[in-house]
Amino acid sequence: MAKVGIVMGSDSDLEIMSKAAQVLDELGVSYDMTVISAHRMPDIFYDYAGSAVEKGIKVIIAGAGGAAHLPGMTAAIFPLPVIGVPIHTKSLGGVDSLYSIVQMPSGIPVATMAINGAANAALLAARILAVSDEALLEKLRKYSADQKEKVVKKADKLNEIGYKAYLERM
Amino acid sequence: MAKVGIVMGSDSDLEIMSKAAQVLDELGVSYDMTVISAHRMPDIFYDYAGSAVEKGIKVIIAGAGGAAHLPGMTAAIFPLPVIGVPIHTKSLGGVDSLYSIVQMPSGIPVATMAINGAANAALLAARILAVSDEALLEKLRKYSADQKEKVVKKADKLNEIGYKAYLERM
Amino acid sequence: MAKVGIVMGSDSDLEIMSKAAQVLDELGVSYDMTVISAHRMPDIFYDYAGSAVEKGIKVIIAGAGGAAHLPGMTAAIFPLPVIGVPIHTKSLGGVDSLYSIVQMPSGIPVATMAINGAANAALLAARILAVSDEALLEKLRKYSADQKEKVVKKADKLNEIGYKAYLERM
Amino acid sequence: MAKVGIVMGSDSDLEIMSKAAQVLDELGVSYDMTVISAHRMPDIFYDYAGSAVEKGIKVIIAGAGGAAHLPGMTAAIFPLPVIGVPIHTKSLGGVDSLYSIVQMPSGIPVATMAINGAANAALLAARILAVSDEALLEKLRKYSADQKEKVVKKADKLNEIGYKAYLERM
Amino acid sequence: MAKVGIVMGSDSDLEIMSKAAQVLDELGVSYDMTVISAHRMPDIFYDYAGSAVEKGIKVIIAGAGGAAHLPGMTAAIFPLPVIGVPIHTKSLGGVDSLYSIVQMPSGIPVATMAINGAANAALLAARILAVSDEALLEKLRKYSADQKEKVVKKADKLNEIGYKAYLERM
Amino acid sequence: MAKVGIVMGSDSDLEIMSKAAQVLDELGVSYDMTVISAHRMPDIFYDYAGSAVEKGIKVIIAGAGGAAHLPGMTAAIFPLPVIGVPIHTKSLGGVDSLYSIVQMPSGIPVATMAINGAANAALLAARILAVSDEALLEKLRKYSADQKEKVVKKADKLNEIGYKAYLERM
Amino acid sequence: MAKVGIVMGSDSDLEIMSKAAQVLDELGVSYDMTVISAHRMPDIFYDYAGSAVEKGIKVIIAGAGGAAHLPGMTAAIFPLPVIGVPIHTKSLGGVDSLYSIVQMPSGIPVATMAINGAANAALLAARILAVSDEALLEKLRKYSADQKEKVVKKADKLNEIGYKAYLERM
Amino acid sequence: MAKVGIVMGSDSDLEIMSKAAQVLDELGVSYDMTVISAHRMPDIFYDYAGSAVEKGIKVIIAGAGGAAHLPGMTAAIFPLPVIGVPIHTKSLGGVDSLYSIVQMPSGIPVATMAINGAANAALLAARILAVSDEALLEKLRKYSADQKEKVVKKADKLNEIGYKAYLERM
Repeated sequence: MAKVGIVMGSDSDLEIMSKAAQVLDELGVSYDMTVISAHRMPDIFYDYAGSAVEKGIKVIIAGAGGAAHLPGMTAAIFPLPVIGVPIHTKSLGGVDSLYSIVQMPSGIPVATMAINGAANAALLAARILAVSDEALLEKLRKYSADQKEKVVKKADKLNEIGYKAYLERM
Repeated sequence: MAKVGIVMGSDSDLEIMSKAAQVLDELGVSYDMTVISAHRMPDIFYDYAGSAVEKGIKVIIAGAGGAAHLPGMTAAIFPLPVIGVPIHTKSLGGVDSLYSIVQMPSGIPVATMAINGAANAALLAARILAVSDEALLEKLRKYSADQKEKVVKKADKLNEIGYKAYLERM
Repeated sequence: MAKVGIVMGSDSDLEIMSKAAQVLDELGVSYDMTVISAHRMPDIFYDYAGSAVEKGIKVIIAGAGGAAHLPGMTAAIFPLPVIGVPIHTKSLGGVDSLYSIVQMPSGIPVATMAINGAANAALLAARILAVSDEALLEKLRKYSADQKEKVVKKADKLNEIGYKAYLERM
Repeated sequence: MAKVGIVMGSDSDLEIMSKAAQVLDELGVSYDMTVISAHRMPDIFYDYAGSAVEKGIKVIIAGAGGAAHLPGMTAAIFPLPVIGVPIHTKSLGGVDSLYSIVQMPSGIPVATMAINGAANAALLAARILAVSDEALLEKLRKYSADQKEKVVKKADKLNEIGYKAYLERM
Repeated sequence: MAKVGIVMGSDSDLEIMSKAAQVLDELGVSYDMTVISAHRMPDIFYDYAGSAVEKGIKVIIAGAGGAAHLPGMTAAIFPLPVIGVPIHTKSLGGVDSLYSIVQMPSGIPVATMAINGAANAALLAARILAVSDEALLEKLRKYSADQKEKVVKKADKLNEIGYKAYLERM
Repeated sequence: MAKVGIVMGSDSDLEIMSKAAQVLDELGVSYDMTVISAHRMPDIFYDYAGSAVEKGIKVIIAGAGGAAHLPGMTAAIFPLPVIGVPIHTKSLGGVDSLYSIVQMPSGIPVATMAINGAANAALLAARILAVSDEALLEKLRKYSADQKEKVVKKADKLNEIGYKAYLERM
Repeated sequence: MAKVGIVMGSDSDLEIMSKAAQVLDELGVSYDMTVISAHRMPDIFYDYAGSAVEKGIKVIIAGAGGAAHLPGMTAAIFPLPVIGVPIHTKSLGGVDSLYSIVQMPSGIPVATMAINGAANAALLAARILAVSDEALLEKLRKYSADQKEKVVKKADKLNEIGYKAYLERM
Repeated sequence: MAKVGIVMGSDSDLEIMSKAAQVLDELGVSYDMTVISAHRMPDIFYDYAGSAVEKGIKVIIAGAGGAAHLPGMTAAIFPLPVIGVPIHTKSLGGVDSLYSIVQMPSGIPVATMAINGAANAALLAARILAVSDEALLEKLRKYSADQKEKVVKKADKLNEIGYKAYLERM
């Protein structure tokens, strides 16, 4: 039974949103992922958001671009945390997606990530679950330590070989 | 039986949205006006949008501010024209409302007006109805002629008394 | 006799604007399409907008980029609905086009679409005509159902093969 | 023992951030609230963020304006959910605060709210705690139902007395 | 016979545009000033722009706000220099006016001023006329010298009394 | 003896600014073109702007990008018309260039063109000279007529072969 | 002999720029402050910037708004550090000032502060002088400690009396 | 012993930030360069910023992108000048980085450069050191003279061969 639901408005968002799935895979958090357009299939969307709690979903990650209504409408129906991922758009760079998701009216919160920030959406979902899951908190600490380790190694390498050699290897 | 539905997400939008009602009153177009939040009462909203055609509504004018989902979600359910009015916001001046309404994905059009452009929303609704209503088209032509007349009178007055006197009277 | 007029300020807008023609073709709505620059040929433009009603045009779709005056000037002369399509621009991404079209003064409405939103312009034109055309309304309902069907199939496929396989096929 | 920590960079943010406290009070969620500037007192800030888990804090709400580093730096140290509230600024309206908080690099998520969205920050904190607290989830459902009730009453009143009378009473 | 035409789309622009008249008065340049809306009275506008050359107008200053089409449409018809003044707007601060005026397509130049920059519009008109008018050039040089003199006096005063006293007198 | 001076802050602006030269060549207006950085060679810049009148220059076209000070500083020294061309920039698309050029303080006008609008700068320079040059005015009228002719031919072609064939030939 | 020069383009900037003077007074750093417009008095400006080194000036703080050229032009002539303060503007909030100052081309650095950030300009000037002045560095450390102390006291007060009482006293 | 510290949040910033190193190499100013993420390794960052003075570092150049906290947090701990370089970002072009760095609260100055302005960061660092280093000031004067020389040569070449030939050689 999945704990995290990942939804997106269009399969053109899948390349970005799959990064959320990858991070959840790494952390061993169960999820299911699907494509649901709040605009093109409002009834299916309504069923999805309305039945998620009883299916055991604890957090929903919703990605959408442009006039992005999926995260906000999900948060209007699903009573547990909703994380919104604004997708980059060609003309406005994703500022349209960002404003459509983050500027929610009082009463309906959406936890908004950076433009294309699907990996962070998964990490936030894991942090939310870790509030009541010590083992997951431990995995998150290890994940952060690994991240730090990687940067330290890069810094050591830069120090060792100098920036010219480093740039050539990139 | 009303031909135009006017909806808004909050009664704080009423001062702006009432301008649409005033213009429709002037043009003799029937309407009803109500407050429906797609976020706070999604079920009532779904009913409203889903039953509007059978109630005889031909055009819906929807005003909303911030992460403004009401116009787009209405257009996802109601199959006739939806006109969106982005409401001015304190921090972003209404750019958030504008982007949330105008940047709709392909398949679900919202006829977007200027920020706070409720009067034009009513005029567009009337133009839409005038496609199949000669008498209304005539009223619209007269409305435009009156507008023109008013500006011509102002220009005449400015010419007559000069800009200094004109500014003092404003 | 065409019911919809499609105009654009330059043939460089044709690639985008032709999407409106395609959608109208799909829906069986008659249209004519031409290039008219309000700036470079104001007299021809004036004739076009001034004679459209008597030629039977019910809705005009106007696309333009940058300091985009074509939609607004059309709406100043043609008394029935005008739909504006802001064209993407290199330096400002189309925000200049969008503001030039959407921020119309009170009295002269332009139904503004998303940047490059020509397909939605056609759908809105069809919705407008459908106000007094039951058969067209039925076609629009079917069009929406087909759209929904396509997304549902994609969701099923994603569910069936998983996101990694899905991404590889894209 | 408080479950939610509310921090802000300056006491000039208190008027906005106190709305988070009010909502948590309404929902019966324990919190403590303080002023900590990551810039002016980095050592105290590091202690606060570093010791919050062992003090029983499950979620931190951090509000800041301008080059707003407090939420992101908190999320760099505290491993559980951090909610960022961008505070409105005079010159840029809070876009500076918003970008400084939401555009976090991969690895360090901040759940970003609307500009001045402190009430929603509290609601999100409550939703996060409700993942493992059925009673709180019930309170949240009731909170939403009350919100809906209020809008319904307003709509009824508007319907009853008309928009002119309604506007006069506002 | 006036050499400069000053037009604006609405008498609400008069307070700003009158600054152009004041500067032309100071410099002894003849002008006439009127209100013409390209949107509300397109036929009168076309006559105005089309007959200006034969009336002796050498430069037109056009002010407009929002989707500001007046300067560009004037430049499409009047073949001599057109100076555009973007008027400040409430929601977008005049960025909409600026983009609508400055982003003209190749072929139709509009000499764009700062938002609300009507005084500079008059100075540019005078510079344009001064290309073939030595006496006017001399007046412009004197105008600049006077401007400089004023700032020098302020600097001297600041130096003399110190900033605290200076601020008190402002 | 050149009547128009074309300056730019860097030879990286030459590709854009050469369009001004091409238009002036077409219209038979004399010009000279050079690279002068107000930042890197302020003394040479000062000499150039200060001696232009006596060299017979009537109009200066100045192109610059980023924190673009060349047009404004030229207008501070040269008393006849200065036309500014904001050059596109990678990060901000040229909004930085545009604001740096157009938002001049009262007293120092710069006739600002669209981003990369060098061709229009040349046309405006020609319009300015045409105020006192009937023959040049005639050339400008012909130039506009040719522009119109070209668009009319394109419209005819589109009408003749249809949009699909037209798009294939582009 | 003053070590820091404070210049501004207009005495309307004095209210903001005087905050720089106040901070330098607090830190005991000598300065002189004057009004010099690079646009209205380019010759005086050139003399000022060109002779500052020999007068003993080590750092120049330049404030300007709109198309703000003063800081960049100063940095083009004065070879030691120049600090730019973008002044808030009515229409664009100071984004115009900010872009005009910060987006300098390679070769001519301006140390840009926040919009209206004159106090920080003084602190940066002091930090620059402190590179070779131990006593001043000590004063800066004390200044920071005092800042921290003030926030700590506020936090203690908030903790003591609660947010409701605290808000009432503000 | 290095006088300038160059830090960046990620090795993806190295290509830009290496330009600072190149300029310092040209000017003979000692530096060390490393990768430190304030977010991913807050303890290492804290040590770096806290021990820099005693290691002899006089100026720190910090580059970061997105929600860029590194420059501001460095300036919160290191008491001498900090220069911030906003790195270009894909979706927002670096406006997010710029706002996150430049809009610092009163008390903590960051000398902000243009987006990707790493070369200017090095020049500013050199100007800061030149306040107490006559020889370095002389090198900077020579550096500027060389820059000027290069532009003069380009102008001469353009003058000699004409713009068409010049463009072909670029």
